[in-house]
Amino acid sequence: MGDDPGLIDAPLLRALRGEPVEYIPVWFMRQAGRSLPEYRAVRERATLLEITHSPELAAEVTLQPVRRHGVDAAILFSDIVTPLEAIGVDVDIRPGVGPVIATPVRTSRDLRRLRPFEPAADAPWLAEAVRLACSELSVPLIGFAGGPFTLASYLVEGGPSKTQARAKALMLADPATWRMLLDRLADIALASLTAQVQAGAQAVQVFDSWIGSLSARHYTAHVLPVVRRLFDGLAALGVPRIYFGLGTGHLLEAIGSAGPDAVGLDWRVPLDEGRLRLPPEVALQGNLDPVACLAPRPVLEAEVADVLAQAPGRGYVFNLGHGVPPETDPGSLTHVVELVHAHRTRREGLAP
Amino acid sequence: MGDDPGLIDAPLLRALRGEPVEYIPVWFMRQAGRSLPEYRAVRERATLLEITHSPELAAEVTLQPVRRHGVDAAILFSDIVTPLEAIGVDVDIRPGVGPVIATPVRTSRDLRRLRPFEPAADAPWLAEAVRLACSELSVPLIGFAGGPFTLASYLVEGGPSKTQARAKALMLADPATWRMLLDRLADIALASLTAQVQAGAQAVQVFDSWIGSLSARHYTAHVLPVVRRLFDGLAALGVPRIYFGLGTGHLLEAIGSAGPDAVGLDWRVPLDEGRLRLPPEVALQGNLDPVACLAPRPVLEAEVADVLAQAPGRGYVFNLGHGVPPETDPGSLTHVVELVHAHRTRREGLAP
Repeated sequence: MGDDPGLIDAPLLRALRGEPVEYIPVWFMRQAGRSLPEYRAVRERATLLEITHSPELAAEVTLQPVRRHGVDAAILFSDIVTPLEAIGVDVDIRPGVGPVIATPVRTSRDLRRLRPFEPAADAPWLAEAVRLACSELSVPLIGFAGGPFTLASYLVEGGPSKTQARAKALMLADPATWRMLLDRLADIALASLTAQVQAGAQAVQVFDSWIGSLSARHYTAHVLPVVRRLFDGLAALGVPRIYFGLGTGHLLEAIGSAGPDAVGLDWRVPLDEGRLRLPPEVALQGNLDPVACLAPRPVLEAEVADVLAQAPGRGYVFNLGHGVPPETDPGSLTHVVELVHAHRTRREGLAP
Repeated sequence: MGDDPGLIDAPLLRALRGEPVEYIPVWFMRQAGRSLPEYRAVRERATLLEITHSPELAAEVTLQPVRRHGVDAAILFSDIVTPLEAIGVDVDIRPGVGPVIATPVRTSRDLRRLRPFEPAADAPWLAEAVRLACSELSVPLIGFAGGPFTLASYLVEGGPSKTQARAKALMLADPATWRMLLDRLADIALASLTAQVQAGAQAVQVFDSWIGSLSARHYTAHVLPVVRRLFDGLAALGVPRIYFGLGTGHLLEAIGSAGPDAVGLDWRVPLDEGRLRLPPEVALQGNLDPVACLAPRPVLEAEVADVLAQAPGRGYVFNLGHGVPPETDPGSLTHVVELVHAHRTRREGLAP
């Protein structure tokens, strides 16, 4: 699974494995979505959840940025709460707000609502969307899942939160229930990513966006063991496994010890510092400040050059430090792809 | 100014100056506010802005947490946008949202609306509230102002923002206008804090909460010079100057070079790491995760003990890593004060 011989040497996969590449591969978090007029045209006839439930629409939206920008990877169009919705959690994705959970999970009793996710039965559209997209792609497709802390924060808070205070309070007050909650969410992510890889995804990314709100001590005690178990489980799939979180400068050593093949950095930590603080065998991905996409071309070019100047010579994938801002001119993203592809990698003089 | 002989040896001021103390001083960001029933009683008859405009109400609300918890400092009850409102910016503080600016500042033309702040004429209630509060206090009062980046982000965004994307886009696209904007905001903060110290405040804190959204490179290029100028200006007041931001783990060296006498750390960076990365003459303040205030007593006690175990022996003020969560049981805060005061400081074996 996940080893289509035609793509196994694609730049994205070579870079994630730390092998030399002819040019630096690039893709963008949230590349499929609101910045594209062709996406907004689809959204005029379907909600976000309707798109994820339709293999044709999900595949179409997944392919759009690859066609337009020439990026080196597709990423399945999805939302981190999609598997929760598929097992019956009453979640709604509200435009301009994010996922809203009508009945939050706050006690061990509430965990009953989080039964195991069986993709073939619960979400047949998931694998079908991956199959459809892969049949049209000439670059690898990255499987998509939410990380356990981030999913837990939505479930406990009942929606987006600036501080994750309720989730963290549960973590401190009732660590046993917290651990069961995270274990179930890791199992759900593992099931979802397994289905995506079996359907053709050739890499996976775990989006654990909100872990940066935890101290290293709390992350290490209450989250890391579950993330490590998740990455151990994903290892059996035989594809590169990327881990991403926002504002993780104080967590890099812990994150590196969770076992990912690559770590996505946001723009706060320079790539050269990330390179020193993560294990040498872990590839890096990132980390242009998304706001640079809103700047005039000369500024955008200088910001891209700055990221590239700090990038390691091997084991590196260009990306933004977070998702594409909705108001981005798509032409700016295409230009970034051109700039990154034109950049000559330094094959000597730097550790991988 | 700011040197009432009766309080000059108060533990807060001694600690901020790096001198030995009999016990560790403690106060809480947002100690005056929503967690207190006596505050909510005041709010039943006045809006937040009405309270700031009434010296009696502002002083009363400032004193409430000192009476209840026995903290070692009062902090003027205010909002960072108060001086903007006083010079005619159309700002409203919406409950549950935050400051909302009806007409955002986005061009050099818009800067005309930011005229200099003259506290005596524009906001006579400000100094009067400080005078009234100080006349009743037996602990120092800390003056309160917003930092230039954080104020700029509200002004440019038009309200709270998760990413400060518009503000940062202006910073990158038009650095000259950005610099003029920040310079005006620094002058406003300097004028406000000068008035507060002349009225009796014996320390000042600059709340630059959102600087953590900037990379060290952007902070150093586009914000630090203005913050340094602000701290240089504040030096003439002769009182300790505290600088606080959220998620500043990647900015500590830059922040330390801005010239503050003390740096407030959030909970993400352990105090012992902060001690190593900030200049030895800079005092530390922090950094209990506010969510610990929502945990059961034994957990709260363990979290407080953990912070104290990492605290330096000198030059240290206990605080939360951010504001008191509104749903905090006030009894928990009183308990934290007791725990901190009961802790024996280590007078030997640690650098200040």
